[in-house]
Amino acid sequence: MKDQKIGFVGLGRMGGNMARCLHDRGYHVAAVFDLNPEVTSELAAEVGATACSNLAAVTAGSDIVLTIVTNDAAMEAIYFGEDNLLMGAAGRTFINCATLTPAIHGRIDSAAKDAGAVSLEACMASSIPQARNGSLFLMIGGDEAEFTRVKPLLDDLSEALHFVGPAGKASEVKALVNMIMNINTAALAEGLGIGHALGLDLDMLLRVLGQTGARSRVLETDGADMVARDHECYFSAEHAAKDSGIALKLAESAGIPAPLAQATFAQYTKLTAMGLGQLDKSGIAELTFKGRAI
Amino acid sequence: MKDQKIGFVGLGRMGGNMARCLHDRGYHVAAVFDLNPEVTSELAAEVGATACSNLAAVTAGSDIVLTIVTNDAAMEAIYFGEDNLLMGAAGRTFINCATLTPAIHGRIDSAAKDAGAVSLEACMASSIPQARNGSLFLMIGGDEAEFTRVKPLLDDLSEALHFVGPAGKASEVKALVNMIMNINTAALAEGLGIGHALGLDLDMLLRVLGQTGARSRVLETDGADMVARDHECYFSAEHAAKDSGIALKLAESAGIPAPLAQATFAQYTKLTAMGLGQLDKSGIAELTFKGRAI
Repeated sequence: MKDQKIGFVGLGRMGGNMARCLHDRGYHVAAVFDLNPEVTSELAAEVGATACSNLAAVTAGSDIVLTIVTNDAAMEAIYFGEDNLLMGAAGRTFINCATLTPAIHGRIDSAAKDAGAVSLEACMASSIPQARNGSLFLMIGGDEAEFTRVKPLLDDLSEALHFVGPAGKASEVKALVNMIMNINTAALAEGLGIGHALGLDLDMLLRVLGQTGARSRVLETDGADMVARDHECYFSAEHAAKDSGIALKLAESAGIPAPLAQATFAQYTKLTAMGLGQLDKSGIAELTFKGRAI
Repeated sequence: MKDQKIGFVGLGRMGGNMARCLHDRGYHVAAVFDLNPEVTSELAAEVGATACSNLAAVTAGSDIVLTIVTNDAAMEAIYFGEDNLLMGAAGRTFINCATLTPAIHGRIDSAAKDAGAVSLEACMASSIPQARNGSLFLMIGGDEAEFTRVKPLLDDLSEALHFVGPAGKASEVKALVNMIMNINTAALAEGLGIGHALGLDLDMLLRVLGQTGARSRVLETDGADMVARDHECYFSAEHAAKDSGIALKLAESAGIPAPLAQATFAQYTKLTAMGLGQLDKSGIAELTFKGRAI
């Protein structure tokens, strides 16, 4: 893989750090692009890549292109816009790391095939430090043979790597992961908010929760933050609303009742509508503690 | 503590095994009582205690009485019935281990004081094996000095012991623990049910959930059971409905919105109304998997 030219599209905190990580590990990061030209030229200088001023130039200068953009609209733009990644894309591999609605991955998969290229979806369930040090949690959807071919590169980016099925399936898994995480977070906010209103010692309550069937990963990451109102953002409330919404659409199309996902979506949507969408997901506790938003 | 005569009221799978545990550890289990006389005489023979045919006899024959009954009505009966534990109770200590609504602990606390006795609530968040081998999770409410006095005995029954405040507070904590546990369980059932309907590999999904922010204690205890429909009962759906209901009443009286607890209560109530209340709490997945109850 280290003989391949690697391109990057989307140089935000995730994409930029993934480029730095591959550079550190001896990959040839050859071509980079961001909507912000200043960000593009700074990262290009840092990793010795060409700063591209358009998407076709990234494709021209790369064998493998990683894309890390914010949402479906941005994905539409980079694959189907006037200047796009599929121009001259024969023989290229695209690895798409944004969290998107599952359906768009299928469309990109087909369009890439038509252009003689291959597309993989790579859903990430991790944050910035993991991007920087190559310890991402990655779920891959798409062609399994192509997954196997690029696995050495994916291994260098991740500490956990799962091939989950055809294009779109990784987004489905990610939506369900985040749906459950968001519900568990909302549950914790209710429990702590009620405990607070009852005058319980919340440090004691957190310790008890950690030793019982109520234990969860979000108790470890968000419990004390909810009490302290420390909502510095790792995964935003707005993002939580988006992902729970994706999962709800999947549930609806599959005909599965999901009242808890629905209640959680409503809470995160409410928080976002109150202008608090940029808080961390722990911010949902603003809705369940007396003297805060209620 | 080992010079004290210990009484037991309620010799079901929890109470009987706690009596066996204390007997094994060298305590003098002196007087036992169960509504079922056969159960009473069998356990009395096993631990060398007097088989009591009424509650006043337990009080007469004990210094410390542990009660392990099923619900508020049973507690009413043993403390306020015609034959009850408070007759001749001066100087006795009662340790009440049933999960009850928080308010009843306050009433028993007062009535015990009036009788010259002391009452502690001891909420358990554990199951039968932990009762047998003295590794219960215990949360104690009541008088702190009395807690300190009987702590050696409580330590011998438990591997985790928390004093949480005045009478009734331990039940509040327990209700919140179970409320959060039940929500996390319902969340898992939704995620797995949707994943199943989408044709995802559920073994893969369980592995992924365990490595991400969706991880929880109930994922470990109930995830595979939900997929396999193995609902052998450790903590019944009916019990889950009861505890979520207690938590909801606390939320309501405290003025805290709890939409997830509400949705979870509705699911467990529905399951119970369908005649499936004796399934384990994992049985909630019967409501979210295609081809089961939906």
